[in-house]
Parts: sequence; C-alpha cells; structure tokens
Amino acid sequence: MDKTQALKVPFELINAQLYSVEERIRQQARAFDPAVEGYVAYAVESHGKRLRPALALLAGGATGNICPSHLDLAVILELIHAATLVHDDILDGADKRRGQPTANAKWGNAISVLLGDCLFAHALKLSTSFPNGEISRRIAHAASEVCSGEIIQTQRRFDLKLSVPDYYKIIEMKTAALFAAACELGALINEAAPEVIDALRIFGLQLGTAYQIYDDVLDLAGDEAKAGKTLGSDLRKGKLTLPILHLLQISDEAERHRLSEIILNGDEADILALAEKAIAAGAVKSAIATGRKMLREAEGRLQIVPENKYRDALGGLVTTLDRMIGQFTV
Amino acid sequence: MDKTQALKVPFELINAQLYSVEERIRQQARAFDPAVEGYVAYAVESHGKRLRPALALLAGGATGNICPSHLDLAVILELIHAATLVHDDILDGADKRRGQPTANAKWGNAISVLLGDCLFAHALKLSTSFPNGEISRRIAHAASEVCSGEIIQTQRRFDLKLSVPDYYKIIEMKTAALFAAACELGALINEAAPEVIDALRIFGLQLGTAYQIYDDVLDLAGDEAKAGKTLGSDLRKGKLTLPILHLLQISDEAERHRLSEIILNGDEADILALAEKAIAAGAVKSAIATGRKMLREAEGRLQIVPENKYRDALGGLVTTLDRMIGQFTV
Repeated sequence: MDKTQALKVPFELINAQLYSVEERIRQQARAFDPAVEGYVAYAVESHGKRLRPALALLAGGATGNICPSHLDLAVILELIHAATLVHDDILDGADKRRGQPTANAKWGNAISVLLGDCLFAHALKLSTSFPNGEISRRIAHAASEVCSGEIIQTQRRFDLKLSVPDYYKIIEMKTAALFAAACELGALINEAAPEVIDALRIFGLQLGTAYQIYDDVLDLAGDEAKAGKTLGSDLRKGKLTLPILHLLQISDEAERHRLSEIILNGDEADILALAEKAIAAGAVKSAIATGRKMLREAEGRLQIVPENKYRDALGGLVTTLDRMIGQFTV
Repeated sequence: MDKTQALKVPFELINAQLYSVEERIRQQARAFDPAVEGYVAYAVESHGKRLRPALALLAGGATGNICPSHLDLAVILELIHAATLVHDDILDGADKRRGQPTANAKWGNAISVLLGDCLFAHALKLSTSFPNGEISRRIAHAASEVCSGEIIQTQRRFDLKLSVPDYYKIIEMKTAALFAAACELGALINEAAPEVIDALRIFGLQLGTAYQIYDDVLDLAGDEAKAGKTLGSDLRKGKLTLPILHLLQISDEAERHRLSEIILNGDEADILALAEKAIAAGAVKSAIATGRKMLREAEGRLQIVPENKYRDALGGLVTTLDRMIGQFTV
C-alpha cells in the first residue's frame, strides 16, 4: 500500500517537528527488550515518506498549535503503518522495500509476523497516554480498519465479482483510514470545532483514496525504472484495481470473458498486454480522472478550515499529488 | 503456548459470568465488517479453557464485586490470547488446534496474519473504553510483552547458549504476562489496596510461569494420547525448555556435546530418546519440583488478599495445577 516513488511535498514548514518525530520514532526501539530492539529499529528506520506524520502535524498547525501530543500522534500512526508494511511484505513475499531488504528477507516470516505485532502493540500502548481517551479509541479503530481492509483485499484476490464500491471500501479501509485519522485527530487534539474536525477527516479520507488510486495507476502505467518495481504486480497478485475494474466495465461480454481469463490464468506477457490494453482503452485515463476529481473534492473540504499557512500546505499536498497523478502519459 | 490438555478447574463460582464473557466474545465478531466476521467468529469460538478470563473474574471477586469492567477485561485478554494463537499456529505451521483446523490450515497464512492483527487491534480498541487509562495502558503493555517474548523465543530457537534465566524471561513475557495482567487488573478495577494489586500481579506471574513449565513437561513426559500431540514437539522446533536446560546443566562436557548434537541435528528417534533421557536423568523431575515450588510461592501471595470464596478459588486453581504437574510418572 505504500510502494510508490517518493511523494515529495514542501514540508519545510514542519521540518523541525518532522525531525523531532523522526527522533522519537527512533527512540521507540529503545523501549523494547534489547533482544528485540534491533528488529524494531530496522523496521522503523526505513526512510519512508512519513506522510501520515506530516498530515497529523499540518492538521495540528492548521487548527492551532503543533503541540507534543501531535508529535505523539505522528509517531503512533507511523508505527502502525510500519507494522502493516512488515506484515504486507510477508503476504507479498517481498524481499525489498525502498531498496532495502525486507524484514522477512532478513529474518524470515516467523520473526516478521512477531515484529509487526510488536510494533502494533507498542503503537497502541503509546496511544493510551493521551489524556483524551477518544483519541486512543479512534486510533485503535483506524488500526482495526486497516487490518480488516487488508483481509478483505486478500480474500477477494482474483475475485472477478469485485465491484467498484467494493474497491473503494477496501482502499478506504486499508489506506485512507490512517490518513483520515491523522487529519481528524490532529484537529481533535486542538479541540477544533466539530465541523472542522469532520472536514479534515473527510479531507484525509479523500486524499488517502486518491493516493491509493495514484499508486494503482502507477502499477499499470508507471515508469518501471522510477517506480522501482515491475509493472503489473497488482494484477499478478490478483488485486483488481480501479483501472482494471473500469476496463472490465467498458468491455463487451466476449471481451470481458477474455480479460477475465487473463486475470485468472494469464502469463507474464498476457499481464503486460492487459496493462497496455487498460491504457489504450482509456480505463487508466478514467481512473486518473476519478482520482483528480477526488482531490478537488478533498481541497474543497479545506474551505471550512481557518486560513493559515498550514492549511495552505495541506492544499499544496493536494496540488502535488494532482500533478503526480496527472503526469502519466496515457 | 496453550496446547495442554484441559486444565479443568472448579469454576462453578463464576459460571454465570464466564457465560456472559463467552457471549460477549461471540458478539465481538459482529463488530467487524461482514466480510471479516466469519474469520473472527471462527478464531474466538475455539472452545479454549478461558483461563485468563477466569483469572480476571476471580481477582475481581476476591477484591470486591465482579462488575461489567471485569467482563470487558476478560473479553479483551481472551481476544489478545486468541490473536497470539492465530499467529503462533502460522509460525508452527500447525494444522490443528484443539482438534479443529487452524486458521492457517483453513484460509492460508495471508488471511491468518491479518486475522491475528484484526483480533489484536480490536482487543486494544475495546481496552480504550476503560474510564481509567491506566488499565488500557497496562493491557497494551502486557500485549507488547507477549509479542516481544515470542520474538525472543523464536530468535533463540536451537540456541544452546540459552540460560535458565533467559528461559524464565521468555516464558514470563510470552505466557505469564497475560496471567499477571488478568489478576492485577481484576484488582485494579476494584481499586484494591496497592499491595493487594501487586500481590495478585505476582500471583498471576508465578501461576503463569508454573503453567508454562507444566506445559513444557507435558511435551516431554505427557501421555501422547491425552495430550493430543506428539511428544518432543518443542525440541523439534528448537525450543529449549526447563527440563532440557536442566539436563544440559547436569551433564558432563562430553555428554553435553552429544546432547547438543541431537538438539541441533537429531532425527525423530534421537529426539524421543532425548526426552527419555531427560526423564531418566531426573531433569524432568527437577523441572516439576521447580514448578511446584513456584505454585507454593504463588499461593503464599494470596495471604494478603482478603479472605473470601473467590480468593479460595484462586487457591484452588493452584492446587489443581499442582496436582496436574505432580501426576507425571517420571
């Protein structure tokens, strides 16, 4: 769920706080038994984009001050994210992430299952320190959504009956739930007005959804060298993403039958041809249009948020993602 | 960590509450997305002994009334336990648990990794509902201990340098931490005196440790038919348990070298011979003595707890486990 090329955003505004978050994430490893510390340190020092922390900080800044609770929130969300990545890599049998060996490649699946559990438990332990119990409750809820979304995705691999609403439900749970929690809780910590909190939650949900659509498009129409992965990997794993669902929708019955056969039993050449087909038929283009429409909606949610440089930075994030999603030549 | 034959304890005293706990555990499945509900229902309806719930309820009764928070605590601890069992079965490649197919046998490792995560996240979500944040904090801490203990155990499989203190540390973390949390938090919910809370925590820790020693002895000296599993399975997985550590300690260097060779490279017959050897050399007997000594210590902790039928039932649990651990013919 987080395998795209770097989403580089102008985070200068929160550079100092992101640095603190980075420090705190690193410190968490030391909270573990020395025998476990090394694994945890490796899993969290993966130099990810820290997108969820950035959202938590920006939502905090947009609704008041960025206080230590925002740093805690940022750390917790990133640890939950790290836990899901460790488990994802097991499910996918992935041996590299961001150019580094995955935990399962280094230490095998047994350690990695438990390492993910450790990160997860630790994140939820940290989250019990908020004076407002509602915050830890919503964090745990988001974590539960992520896991349930991943189960449904796994369950429905190669399921040709997957509908577009099913697809949205899955990506909202597995990806957008943590984005939404970052934005919502960043505002909740500042006791922002309920309508602002809700607007930021939906902003996060839509941004996260668009981000996943971008990622799905990247897998079909990306630049293999830049993406650092082989195209069509979702298809190979039986993940039916929005462009493929669009392609199935616009095909006549005979064609749909042929495409289904490829999805279920296609070889490497068939899969790549299917990706080409999705581009040629305009299915990728329509997924891109959907993602961009969602970004415009997300941007609209910000209107209710008080105008300040942090809110503008959230808007800037939308613009950057929109540019990235618009750059595919399809 | 929970594969012994049923530890049958006279729980009549809390039968009604255990029934409620059972109901509540079953209800939890319905909190999940319909697509996930079936997996969760299967994982929690495994007809385990519900030992951790029983401890939470008895500790509650011993220190005041058994209130709804005790039922919540019981449900949460059992869900965490269920999560660890689902992940354990993946690590062990187990296809049966208590006579039923494991989740990984039914749905594969991918679903099972995520199912364990779902149970875990849900348990920690439920735990955020306690008005006293200290309770959810300690639950999350215990969960983190369990996962760290399992990592260390996995990391040190086939590690002949494992010391007896290392062994204790592992089983305290992976097994006794949840027993301790059940007893401690059952008392904390009732705002018992700090020394009573602490005594019950140590009671749980010692009971859990003795329980794990019992389980380890069962694996070497149990009745295969009754235990429902093959003897020596810990050895086959490279788990060095207390009797084996004792055997290594009392052997001279040449013999230790021979035994080490079997642990690392022994075939099926060697492993069974090693189990026999541990019995013949008195190593199993000394592990049993250690377990029983720990149970006497645990019982002593109860003296500080107000005298009542629930405290007596906790004592009865000790007696039952002592009888079980004393029944081996070694």
